[in-house]
Amino acid sequence: MATTVSSSTPIINPGSLQRLEPLQVPQRCLLGPGPSNADPRVIAAMNHQPIGHLDPAYLAIMDEVQGLLRYTWQTENPLTYAVAGTGSAAMEATLANAIEPGDRVLVAVNGYFGHRLVDMARRYGADVSTIHRPWGEAFSLDQLTTALEQYQPAVLAIVHAETSTGVCQPLAGLGAACRAQDCLLVVDTVTSLGGVPIFLDEWQVDLAYSCGQKGLSCAPGISPFTMGPRAVAKLEQRRQPVANWYLDAALLRKYWGPERVYHHTAPVNLTYALREALRLLAVEGLEARWQRHQQTAEYFWAGLADLGLTCHVAQEWRLPTLTTVRVPDGVDAKAVGRQLLMDHNIEIGGGLGDLAGKVWRVGLMGYNSHRANVDTLLQAMAEVLAQHR
Amino acid sequence: MATTVSSSTPIINPGSLQRLEPLQVPQRCLLGPGPSNADPRVIAAMNHQPIGHLDPAYLAIMDEVQGLLRYTWQTENPLTYAVAGTGSAAMEATLANAIEPGDRVLVAVNGYFGHRLVDMARRYGADVSTIHRPWGEAFSLDQLTTALEQYQPAVLAIVHAETSTGVCQPLAGLGAACRAQDCLLVVDTVTSLGGVPIFLDEWQVDLAYSCGQKGLSCAPGISPFTMGPRAVAKLEQRRQPVANWYLDAALLRKYWGPERVYHHTAPVNLTYALREALRLLAVEGLEARWQRHQQTAEYFWAGLADLGLTCHVAQEWRLPTLTTVRVPDGVDAKAVGRQLLMDHNIEIGGGLGDLAGKVWRVGLMGYNSHRANVDTLLQAMAEVLAQHR
Repeated sequence: MATTVSSSTPIINPGSLQRLEPLQVPQRCLLGPGPSNADPRVIAAMNHQPIGHLDPAYLAIMDEVQGLLRYTWQTENPLTYAVAGTGSAAMEATLANAIEPGDRVLVAVNGYFGHRLVDMARRYGADVSTIHRPWGEAFSLDQLTTALEQYQPAVLAIVHAETSTGVCQPLAGLGAACRAQDCLLVVDTVTSLGGVPIFLDEWQVDLAYSCGQKGLSCAPGISPFTMGPRAVAKLEQRRQPVANWYLDAALLRKYWGPERVYHHTAPVNLTYALREALRLLAVEGLEARWQRHQQTAEYFWAGLADLGLTCHVAQEWRLPTLTTVRVPDGVDAKAVGRQLLMDHNIEIGGGLGDLAGKVWRVGLMGYNSHRANVDTLLQAMAEVLAQHR
Repeated sequence: MATTVSSSTPIINPGSLQRLEPLQVPQRCLLGPGPSNADPRVIAAMNHQPIGHLDPAYLAIMDEVQGLLRYTWQTENPLTYAVAGTGSAAMEATLANAIEPGDRVLVAVNGYFGHRLVDMARRYGADVSTIHRPWGEAFSLDQLTTALEQYQPAVLAIVHAETSTGVCQPLAGLGAACRAQDCLLVVDTVTSLGGVPIFLDEWQVDLAYSCGQKGLSCAPGISPFTMGPRAVAKLEQRRQPVANWYLDAALLRKYWGPERVYHHTAPVNLTYALREALRLLAVEGLEARWQRHQQTAEYFWAGLADLGLTCHVAQEWRLPTLTTVRVPDGVDAKAVGRQLLMDHNIEIGGGLGDLAGKVWRVGLMGYNSHRANVDTLLQAMAEVLAQHR
């Protein structure tokens, strides 16, 4: 049975990349705002062949991921699953599913990711208002409650752990204030989940999202999402379909729920990875994990002080997962970061937005949150800074 | 420095999953509509620690992926990159970036994925019209040209390889017809890229998308996307921002292009995997790869005939990557599929939509497209069918 591609096809352009070498990846210690290093057991779990997204074995893994996510977030929301994209996709999923065009949305902005929430919410037709704090401070419950009364929003979006500033936003009491105004509460837990105490149901949070590659020590590309009963009730009563097919929770709940209706092909290997990351977290236990993050961070802060460096955020608001370190006067922040990467294989982050050039961002998250990494980093920083001051 | 999590925190709900076993994944031969098995070398490439999404080593990998995608699609579009999601996300990306609210969009529907294009396009505010062919047939250029003249759409969306039917849609001449009407041409190449001849520039296609886990033999979760100069010109002149932040090509081009502006964290390990999948394709060469797919498919079709089974699609339109096989009268299609999976570890797909219960869908794609798989499948089908007739 001789068959060839039809001779009427055009001539193939050979391009220039046929002789590319196999992949080489440098070994980095990822101590920036993310990705952090994945737990090697997570990488090993990812290292299986895919199976079908409707295979009974895969459906069982999905159920386990959902249960483990509920534990990690301390929620009983049935609609808790993993979005097939990075944290920003899960962020967009909360807004796309919570907002109907014309809704008033209030965003509490004290960093880069607050601004991103504003940008996204506008794309879904929201009438967006903002309240602000300087980059490096948290909102008080008073300020938030007053703003809720003033703006009467349908949705309040706020960041629990601002990756751009290293601030942890206290959330106790905010959920009750939102319910008093019939407002849905959306919370960004990208840099807190798996590293900082979170009690989603206790705090009466209606929608939340996170990412894989920070406190969970998973590979990036798959992201936790959850939606409580008040948000689901709004979803069920929408006047228009969700303005985003890929992230539509009304469709995805039929795949993650008992109906198992195909929506889109799942990122199967990343689901393996996430299941292992969450399993390891459950084995360690939430309380032990939170304490490990807090203790590693405090050890790092003490070491920074020994080097004469200052944390940007006051201790009461300081995240254990991500620390912003002020760049000393006269030091080129970017050059220091580049040298840490190239000479020491350590990645840290630079400042964003209002803090560009003013801080470095150091993440001690998940698998990476231990003293040996702190020692390695502090020694490398001391060496590099000695050449730059 | 003794520190504990504050004693005022709520009590942790332990959940029920702390003692979950490590991951076990069954070994499946994935001969359904996707995912297909990944090349083991692709899995091995994924099996590295992540590095940062702005690491110079990662930026070099991105450039290589872009170059390899251009070769694979036979395009010189600068705006060619990988979307951080599965094929449906890349599908949505083409529509989100091509459509402004109120645009007339024409969708050629001859299967399930045509309907999905309609659904997505409506969510972006398009005024959608459709033309139809029965599930299992292709459109003629005449029918398409007449429809373009009748509807005068701003965008025509059409599926090159309908995963629900196994039809390959001829595309030569359609790009010219679209340009004559000042219409953008969007083409779904999800089940053709890497397995079926595609000449995107020769065919004057303006936007296209695909997935990782079919003809490319990558893991699912990362998806090729490309946008030609006419589509970019429209993007630059939009009256409103793209109604999808995560997939906004106006933002992503600043990350994939020389500016390297952070947009969202990349799915780093999947990018490793995609680079390896595309590298292996380039080593094999497009022409050899297309011939391998055609020859394997024809071998399968001959074997089906020997079993007394019939292909649903006429040979002139039949895809080499995905074959729809008619279910004989009186046979329970689902039961056969289940038994192939459970007794033989072989996954094939069932029919969707108009073809539900009427066909099986068999994919012979990428790494899986070889005779040994065909032999294994035909033998298993013969055994299982003998018990069901």
